[in-house]
Amino acid sequence: MVNRHPLEAMSSPGGARAVARCDRLGSGIFSDGEGLLFRPWLGKGYEASIGIISEWMADAGMSVRRDAATNLIGRYEGLTSDAPVLLIGSHIDSVRDGGNYDGMLGVLLGIEVVHHFYDQGVRFPFAIEVIGFGDEEGSRFPQTMITTRAMAGGLNVSGLAGLSDRDGVILETALAEAGFPISGFVGARREASDVLGYIEAHIEQGPVLEAENLAVGVVTAIAAQLRYEVRLSGQAGHAGTMAMSLRRDALAAAAEIMIGIEHIAGAGPEGLVATVGLLQVWPGVVNVVPGDVVFSMDIRAGTNAVRDMAAAQIMTVIEDVSARRRVGSEIILRQDLPAVPCDPSLTDVMAQAVENVTGEQARCLVSGAGHDAMIMAQLAPVSMLFIRCREGISHHPAESVRIDDVETSFSVLKEFIQLREGVF
Amino acid sequence: MVNRHPLEAMSSPGGARAVARCDRLGSGIFSDGEGLLFRPWLGKGYEASIGIISEWMADAGMSVRRDAATNLIGRYEGLTSDAPVLLIGSHIDSVRDGGNYDGMLGVLLGIEVVHHFYDQGVRFPFAIEVIGFGDEEGSRFPQTMITTRAMAGGLNVSGLAGLSDRDGVILETALAEAGFPISGFVGARREASDVLGYIEAHIEQGPVLEAENLAVGVVTAIAAQLRYEVRLSGQAGHAGTMAMSLRRDALAAAAEIMIGIEHIAGAGPEGLVATVGLLQVWPGVVNVVPGDVVFSMDIRAGTNAVRDMAAAQIMTVIEDVSARRRVGSEIILRQDLPAVPCDPSLTDVMAQAVENVTGEQARCLVSGAGHDAMIMAQLAPVSMLFIRCREGISHHPAESVRIDDVETSFSVLKEFIQLREGVF
Repeated sequence: MVNRHPLEAMSSPGGARAVARCDRLGSGIFSDGEGLLFRPWLGKGYEASIGIISEWMADAGMSVRRDAATNLIGRYEGLTSDAPVLLIGSHIDSVRDGGNYDGMLGVLLGIEVVHHFYDQGVRFPFAIEVIGFGDEEGSRFPQTMITTRAMAGGLNVSGLAGLSDRDGVILETALAEAGFPISGFVGARREASDVLGYIEAHIEQGPVLEAENLAVGVVTAIAAQLRYEVRLSGQAGHAGTMAMSLRRDALAAAAEIMIGIEHIAGAGPEGLVATVGLLQVWPGVVNVVPGDVVFSMDIRAGTNAVRDMAAAQIMTVIEDVSARRRVGSEIILRQDLPAVPCDPSLTDVMAQAVENVTGEQARCLVSGAGHDAMIMAQLAPVSMLFIRCREGISHHPAESVRIDDVETSFSVLKEFIQLREGVF
Repeated sequence: MVNRHPLEAMSSPGGARAVARCDRLGSGIFSDGEGLLFRPWLGKGYEASIGIISEWMADAGMSVRRDAATNLIGRYEGLTSDAPVLLIGSHIDSVRDGGNYDGMLGVLLGIEVVHHFYDQGVRFPFAIEVIGFGDEEGSRFPQTMITTRAMAGGLNVSGLAGLSDRDGVILETALAEAGFPISGFVGARREASDVLGYIEAHIEQGPVLEAENLAVGVVTAIAAQLRYEVRLSGQAGHAGTMAMSLRRDALAAAAEIMIGIEHIAGAGPEGLVATVGLLQVWPGVVNVVPGDVVFSMDIRAGTNAVRDMAAAQIMTVIEDVSARRRVGSEIILRQDLPAVPCDPSLTDVMAQAVENVTGEQARCLVSGAGHDAMIMAQLAPVSMLFIRCREGISHHPAESVRIDDVETSFSVLKEFIQLREGVF
């Protein structure tokens, strides 16, 4: 079905091949966007990607399956069949008009590392599973990491009722049609006692490593996040006859609120960010004063306290603006993710691995972005390795990594597993 | 095909029947919206409406045809077959989530008036044609009154090339499929020498008549309009890792511009209004800083000078905000309609008709909304009659008229034609 790509002729596992494979998955049948990368959960491009990644997993000596929550899992057995498991993962989905490496690089690096040990004929006192998660980005439904939460055991299925994608398809329906009914998601849950840990390699998506001329860094914690949906309801009316003073324009209210959000985040401590990424106007017609607006609000900070203070200030702005403009407001909490510290012991091992490979002390940093690791921390000790990316650009086609950096991360992951062998 | 509605049993022409028919056309097969009125040009609901209106025209003694630009025309012959023609019209299309009377009431009142004279067996030294125009609202494509301009002779077909509707259907394709190729639109043009005048009855869509407790008013001029499409291009990026100070957020820039637009219009003279009705965000994802925004801008005022001064101030805001935020901006003029005075002589006749019917001097006012009449003024003398509507609400399902007001307007139109007979 899928033609062989010249870069796949590269026989040896490593960072270069992981990059080449990410690039291959960045377009064509692996994307649902025309001329851009968009790989929403369970879309056509997503399923095509699952197909070829499964093949790469099998080539690396793994048995391949999908769990009850759609996650793709390749398993490399340990010395004994009842050995505990070390998980290596990241996500397969991509935002619209995204880059090639966000998520996918972590999955494919996991396969490269296993492939290396498979070629060497090495087995460990633990199995290794490489996991491709489904919806870290919220690429399809207005919720993120549903499949990760299913595996970690923290999924509240009732909270997903009625969620619909941009085409109006309900989540339950989409899952049933894909052959993964939501009622079965509970079956994806892993037993904590079987899992030694979860590690994830990911592009930094920020400017720190580049600024300090470092190939990789070790993540100490993942920032706290809040996500809201804000609904404003004013009064639609004729754009030519409704006097400015009589208007209850929902979009003008949203504009004033957005300026407030930007001001509050900009005035806060480093690491505090707030974003309105999605905004829809109703009826959305040139000559009609907008009656209703819905927008998303994403607030993040290095600590829960900073995040919550900013959220409280923003709520006050929404209330004040809505009251003054006689516009109704509804604020729906869609996600509340506290700051997640990585496991200190695993983080030490990762830092040692970085030092052994690079000859320099590891740079430790906080992740401003959320990752599957923040959910997996509910199940097992987690550690993350960041890889430098150009200008901190991510969620954009200009996302870029250096191949030598990815080779370094490949070596660090191998070193981590070998160091870890001594600890387990 | 269409079931008979009880209200249609009303045998006598008049305002009540026009209102009942408007209400009937406000839902069901006559709307493309579910649970709301949306009747875009050449949509299913539009074509269903054309079908039943044609029947009503025929019942009123008219011959019915569609011209080369999709306009529906019912013709009531004069005393001689080569008599000149008096046009009575308004539009059939409706904005999304609109009201029942905007446009449609003018078309149906024209039919009622003709039906009245047909029942009386009265013919005039001029023919009367009732016209249902296609796209006064820009209900489907981002341009308005294409079919009206085709009839008036002011249509620049090359300016329509490549326009697409919300589903991405190109205007040329939609027209060809509907059996009205754009290349043929020139055939809809009327000869000015054949047309005595154009009159249009329309709900006020504003608060003046209600505030002064008047059923009807006579329009002296239609406000000047400008419509723009504004495109802002910043830089998309990860909502969690892109520091506030480094952002080039196209939506935040749009928010600041919208506040500026609102301020400029609010500080201007009475009658100046400016509206951002349509706004789209790219990529439009919860966790991505918006890279691109497109929004519409509609500016109107009673005089060209006030309108143009406001537009110039808004352009300055767009330039300043874009430059400061390092966001690219492109401003595309989509429509430039100067203020259109109604014909003084016809307006005098209309005012006399109002006085004869109501016993009071006619209230004269400027229309803040655009109407087919402003285009038809390029072809012939025009006059407009405004009908009071509740709270000035229009482009909204709460749009409402009083039946006694519509009866008054029915009488005024009859009186106008009888007075006019003496003048021609």
